[in-house]
Amino acid sequence: MNRKTGAEYLQNNKTRFCVWAPFKEKVAVKLKEKKPISLTRDKNGYWEGIVEGTKPGDLYKYILNNKDQFPDPASRSQPEGVHSWSQVIDQNEFSWQDNDWKGIPLSQMVIYELHVGTFTPQGTYEAIIDKLDHLLELGANTIEIMPISQFPGERNWGYDGVYPYAAQYSYGGVNGLKKMIDACHKKGIAVILDAVYNHMGPEGNYLSQYGPYFTEKYQTPWGAALNFDDEHSDEVRNFFLQNAIMWLEDFHFDGLRLDAIHEIIDRGARHLLKEMSQKVDEMEEKTSRRFVLIAESDLNDTKVVNSYEKGGFGLEGQWVDDFHHAVHTLLTGEKEGYYSDYGKLSQLAKAFKQGFIYDGVYSSHRKRTVGNSPKGLAPHHFVVSIQNHDQVGNRMLGDRLTHLLSFEGQKLAAGIMLTSAFVPMLFMGEEFGEENPFQYFVSHGDPELVKAVQQGRKREFEYFLTHEGDFPDPQSKETFNNSKLNWNFKDDERKKKLFEFYKYLLKLRKEGEFEPFRNSEIKTTAIVEKNLLLAE
Amino acid sequence: MNRKTGAEYLQNNKTRFCVWAPFKEKVAVKLKEKKPISLTRDKNGYWEGIVEGTKPGDLYKYILNNKDQFPDPASRSQPEGVHSWSQVIDQNEFSWQDNDWKGIPLSQMVIYELHVGTFTPQGTYEAIIDKLDHLLELGANTIEIMPISQFPGERNWGYDGVYPYAAQYSYGGVNGLKKMIDACHKKGIAVILDAVYNHMGPEGNYLSQYGPYFTEKYQTPWGAALNFDDEHSDEVRNFFLQNAIMWLEDFHFDGLRLDAIHEIIDRGARHLLKEMSQKVDEMEEKTSRRFVLIAESDLNDTKVVNSYEKGGFGLEGQWVDDFHHAVHTLLTGEKEGYYSDYGKLSQLAKAFKQGFIYDGVYSSHRKRTVGNSPKGLAPHHFVVSIQNHDQVGNRMLGDRLTHLLSFEGQKLAAGIMLTSAFVPMLFMGEEFGEENPFQYFVSHGDPELVKAVQQGRKREFEYFLTHEGDFPDPQSKETFNNSKLNWNFKDDERKKKLFEFYKYLLKLRKEGEFEPFRNSEIKTTAIVEKNLLLAE
Repeated sequence: MNRKTGAEYLQNNKTRFCVWAPFKEKVAVKLKEKKPISLTRDKNGYWEGIVEGTKPGDLYKYILNNKDQFPDPASRSQPEGVHSWSQVIDQNEFSWQDNDWKGIPLSQMVIYELHVGTFTPQGTYEAIIDKLDHLLELGANTIEIMPISQFPGERNWGYDGVYPYAAQYSYGGVNGLKKMIDACHKKGIAVILDAVYNHMGPEGNYLSQYGPYFTEKYQTPWGAALNFDDEHSDEVRNFFLQNAIMWLEDFHFDGLRLDAIHEIIDRGARHLLKEMSQKVDEMEEKTSRRFVLIAESDLNDTKVVNSYEKGGFGLEGQWVDDFHHAVHTLLTGEKEGYYSDYGKLSQLAKAFKQGFIYDGVYSSHRKRTVGNSPKGLAPHHFVVSIQNHDQVGNRMLGDRLTHLLSFEGQKLAAGIMLTSAFVPMLFMGEEFGEENPFQYFVSHGDPELVKAVQQGRKREFEYFLTHEGDFPDPQSKETFNNSKLNWNFKDDERKKKLFEFYKYLLKLRKEGEFEPFRNSEIKTTAIVEKNLLLAE
Repeated sequence: MNRKTGAEYLQNNKTRFCVWAPFKEKVAVKLKEKKPISLTRDKNGYWEGIVEGTKPGDLYKYILNNKDQFPDPASRSQPEGVHSWSQVIDQNEFSWQDNDWKGIPLSQMVIYELHVGTFTPQGTYEAIIDKLDHLLELGANTIEIMPISQFPGERNWGYDGVYPYAAQYSYGGVNGLKKMIDACHKKGIAVILDAVYNHMGPEGNYLSQYGPYFTEKYQTPWGAALNFDDEHSDEVRNFFLQNAIMWLEDFHFDGLRLDAIHEIIDRGARHLLKEMSQKVDEMEEKTSRRFVLIAESDLNDTKVVNSYEKGGFGLEGQWVDDFHHAVHTLLTGEKEGYYSDYGKLSQLAKAFKQGFIYDGVYSSHRKRTVGNSPKGLAPHHFVVSIQNHDQVGNRMLGDRLTHLLSFEGQKLAAGIMLTSAFVPMLFMGEEFGEENPFQYFVSHGDPELVKAVQQGRKREFEYFLTHEGDFPDPQSKETFNNSKLNWNFKDDERKKKLFEFYKYLLKLRKEGEFEPFRNSEIKTTAIVEKNLLLAE
């Protein structure tokens, strides 16, 4: 396989177009203001053709069966949004300056999660460059950007993306993204992309016009599952595998954070994530660079990071939500929704030692036994946080620990995370106690969908209706603007002090002061009556 | 967990009733012609009570919410069929004579698959006893009986069972089954049960009246999947795990053949089959007996039999359909349906060496890449056959190799199977070239269902409509009677000769003559122009 789809500019005004549409009688590419040109089908249902007289920037769609036209599922650029023309891109145009860059191993990463649209006032890829010195001063060496695949409108967390290969145009498109990554590498900072391979967004998703990308065999929270093990799944798998490779190869990303892998359903003999991991191994071999794949997983299953020999997918790391929830519930006292499964000091002791709290233990919230034992796994397979886009943003008001904890409480939370043996991940602004919230925002074009999102969002807060105040409207631009970071934190003594505290802990961490906690023989004890956690 | 459900007779006219019904307000047990007695709920939704004045043979149902009454999902006996009373059984009544029996390791098994209803003229468990000397003469040491969980009516292959804990009453019920197994053990014959843990039959299935036994998250060929990983799945899993244990413990079965495990969908961190395998390990420890778990799997995934250390389920064995199909297509020339994926001599060479043909290879019939490599797995993890209930019975006329091959062809097929390194499984009558077919038969009580089965069956033969003759009516008693073995085979020279051939090969096999084929360094070569398969 390893078939690349999309429009590939070949130089000399030639572009190779390739799209998978196995059940169509005829597929043509239609360049804007030109006549359609028929493509040729191969035995696997890929339609291909090289078209002369084309150049980077040209707009195109595909015409299926001489009838309807749609944008390219593998479009690299959607300058006019999700419903309109796809654009030819020359991936060789950009002059990379990062030839010596080799990447950073996960065990040494200090990750900083950010959302491109709200991290800076400008909300673009390039604007991030100005903030890299701040990150270096802090002591972070890796940024993880929330999904950037083209989504409807200009405001979105990114999980509604519908063009997995297209960097969100309103953030600055292909070259803006490349400039940012190149600048990061020059400063010694790795860049991880949050990639969504478990569903497509609800607006502008034309995949099913082309082929059986989905299967009705399985239901996910977003509807029918992506087709990773049913008939024709080889080509669907290839679409996403090639997508992962593109981000690493053409954009020089240092790795992917794979969204909610528990909804990537694949019962075949070679799980999609194992195959992805093996493909990334090959790339490491080829490029002598280091890449990381990190799963968001609610399975608490060591299979995700276990080696191939142990029957695992061989991913480098996985998020451990248990760690977050243990810290959060203990310090805030919150008990709503899934937090009801947490709140005991002994759970924090367990999380600090081994990551998973639910390691084959019954969960009252999930109403079943969850997880298996992580014994024997090196701690650098686990990424932990005390705040992240979900845990902040999925609160009704998007309020941060700044609003929930005392100043000492915030420092305690940071201390637990940064002294731990696991890979720490900060959420943008956490390091200086940002007071602006991070709220849920969208900018859909379909009024019915907007209404559904607004209502659905309200329904979700059955669990978390613990706060006063107006419910923020996800569709409103104000909600988006309210979520932007305020960069004047050095004018505020407390914020500055918190920032210095983070810096100091990260410095000690880098100097190896917390290495003893990486020892697997570490004993953690909860002394409940004194509210004390001993690690010895 | 390890909670046992059903009616357990405790001696002294006391019976303990226990049933899982987590969402009911009230559950009572109603003994026939007596007043209902309320049961008491525990925190997991199990309702329990010990009822005095009861005795083995008593009939009962459960009354849910003071309203409807239904048979017991864990009924041990359904003397009046699937819609009627459940019956109290005393599992300690039978005097077992097989105390010294230790079981047979899978690597030494020669399996003989039989269907209780058609193996003997009487069609009962006990009638099998008369045929054990025939099996010993043949050289088989293990029988595998097609499913016996109570199904609608008196004629069924068994895959429509709806009471997983009840031995089909028309075959002779609990004590008939025990007598048969005891007799087998006295003669040195192991007994494996075909157990169906992937669906329930369409008639008489009252499980959903009691609780969330099914989940709509997944669709199987039989509708919503059994709930092995959704909310409340701990109790559903327990229901089937305890079922497996019951057959081994109370009935002295030597193992289970697990039907179509690719439809046992479980994305949790401890797959149901791994948990089952671990529970059976514990039983082996406790009893010093040997048990086998054999999967029917279309995944071609070594995970099924890999050790726990390698991330596997740790089952002893799995069927390899590839082996059957390679032999069948080469010798018959058939190319219909899934047989279209086979027919090359080189495939037989591959199957003879390593079992899986599809080991990461694209399947045109399944329209996707299938399988992974079995390299390094001992051959005794694979069970192979040249005929079995599915491959014979799922033909329109249920015709056997007797009808499809010349006499020499039948011997060649037998030779390929019996010289191979894998565990051979014969289908009843194969050893003497039975001429009666094995057809598909049911005896449903619901006329709508009967019609649906009749029509569905006809639809299936789009693929296999290669034969002349009337389409046998599954519901007709004649179809069942036509499928019974004819035991006068010694009156027929050719049949006798084939039987002697099987005996001879099995004798050589037992004496280790074919041991060289177990060497993993064996080289198999297909010499197509000479139609020759070399194994060296």
